[in-house]
Amino acid sequence: MDILTEKSSMRRAADRWRAEGRRIALVPTMGYFHEGHLSLMDMARKAADRVVVSLFVNPAQFGPSEDLARYPRDLERDAALAEARGVDCLFAPPAEEMYPAGYQTWVEVTDLAAGLCGASRPGHFRGVCTVVAKLFNIVRPDVAVFGAKDFQQLQVVRRMAADLDLPVEILAHPVVREPDGLAMSSRNTYLSPEERRSALSLFSSLELAARLVREGEREAGRIEAAVAAHIRSAPGTRIDYVFVGDPETLRPVKRLAGPTLLALAVWVGKTRLIDNTILEPCPTGPMRAD
Amino acid sequence: MDILTEKSSMRRAADRWRAEGRRIALVPTMGYFHEGHLSLMDMARKAADRVVVSLFVNPAQFGPSEDLARYPRDLERDAALAEARGVDCLFAPPAEEMYPAGYQTWVEVTDLAAGLCGASRPGHFRGVCTVVAKLFNIVRPDVAVFGAKDFQQLQVVRRMAADLDLPVEILAHPVVREPDGLAMSSRNTYLSPEERRSALSLFSSLELAARLVREGEREAGRIEAAVAAHIRSAPGTRIDYVFVGDPETLRPVKRLAGPTLLALAVWVGKTRLIDNTILEPCPTGPMRAD
Repeated sequence: MDILTEKSSMRRAADRWRAEGRRIALVPTMGYFHEGHLSLMDMARKAADRVVVSLFVNPAQFGPSEDLARYPRDLERDAALAEARGVDCLFAPPAEEMYPAGYQTWVEVTDLAAGLCGASRPGHFRGVCTVVAKLFNIVRPDVAVFGAKDFQQLQVVRRMAADLDLPVEILAHPVVREPDGLAMSSRNTYLSPEERRSALSLFSSLELAARLVREGEREAGRIEAAVAAHIRSAPGTRIDYVFVGDPETLRPVKRLAGPTLLALAVWVGKTRLIDNTILEPCPTGPMRAD
Repeated sequence: MDILTEKSSMRRAADRWRAEGRRIALVPTMGYFHEGHLSLMDMARKAADRVVVSLFVNPAQFGPSEDLARYPRDLERDAALAEARGVDCLFAPPAEEMYPAGYQTWVEVTDLAAGLCGASRPGHFRGVCTVVAKLFNIVRPDVAVFGAKDFQQLQVVRRMAADLDLPVEILAHPVVREPDGLAMSSRNTYLSPEERRSALSLFSSLELAARLVREGEREAGRIEAAVAAHIRSAPGTRIDYVFVGDPETLRPVKRLAGPTLLALAVWVGKTRLIDNTILEPCPTGPMRAD
């Protein structure tokens, strides 16, 4: 596996593969790999002939009061994990390679990025879109793999690629969870043992919502309220948002009429965690007589 | 010459040429060709094996009170002119092909786009950058040709391409002028015979400035004042800006120490015209004794 830090060498490697007719997959990451990242790499491996994993803790997507400085990093371990997963190239540029002096161009998706994480993290998706557009332009992948844990990011990136006519197929990998259900995240390393227990309330609230829907609940407000109450019952949690809405437009819905997104952002101590699921109201559910 | 209106057919044509090893040039235009456009096509012809001219009156770069609706259009004439100049493909998509329902992604250059035309036309360069990024992603040209008449646009597009890692070389073609010096522009068709005479004050003020510099003037403020007074002496003119500054950063300078941009935007009646030149202070000019 090659480890490249310069855009020019990354572009040359990708150009060479393209000239050989290879299909290229890109997995954009911020590193500190867990099984979630590794599953994205497996998915990329199946979808293409050459797999590039980018590892870049993107300063542009962190707010001034966020955890850029303490975001966990371990390039050596990440390189070993990626290589073991059959990755062909790890692209790990320094920040000044991506944002040299005088940098001043930004890519922004408006509506889809306005609410949810976009509301609590101003500028976050602008940073995400900009770095992803740059990575797409450097690597020119045929396919790129994103995790569905960051559901809004997935939809924002899909929109950005379609709107800007970037000829890349975006694949989504389902949320990868710890055995007890906690969604894998590099930020889980911030959690104390107590916080780790409280963090489980995110997943169990998704299960609660799925059960309510199975039992016939269709009112978004009642689902949100039940989820919020469940999370609040766990010590040290503070809800940023509980959202029930359309998975494509990310607009809230009042009643569930088809596959519906339930997305959460919750502070557990000083750590902000997100999770989501798609609620599937079955039209012949037990509460319906027709 | 092919006339294509769909992104997918444009992309296929360009992909085919690329696979054959052809070098592709793109000339983005809003149509209603004059000799300025045709000179860009000649430059593109020399720089590449295949020349694509895009013809798109981009709604995103017009303000709500601007001349989008009355901007001159003549596709048939344009197609004949482009074909005669050896263009391989005219890409003329309808607006809904470039901005379908739900479109919401924008590319923005901050500092370089903030002043001059960016100040008087809010959102203009956001529209320009977005459509140019899209055209670059559809055609993937090796080289793109822009006119130096829109000097700020040229520098903003250069910055955008470099910042977003778009692997395209940007070529600038010098301002093309009518025999009497008026910079060619599709908007010149708006001018009445009287306005056409007044419009000449833009070019003659550039000549005046060049003469002052040749005679030793180095104070930007005095050059600006002389240029402004000259333009104001022409009937029906109203100055938007007279700018003397650094051609790379587009920041104003107080004294001329090297090649310096003089850029103008002037209303002549209801028509806004722009022009510019690079002032070249000769270090051994007549006013210097050292």
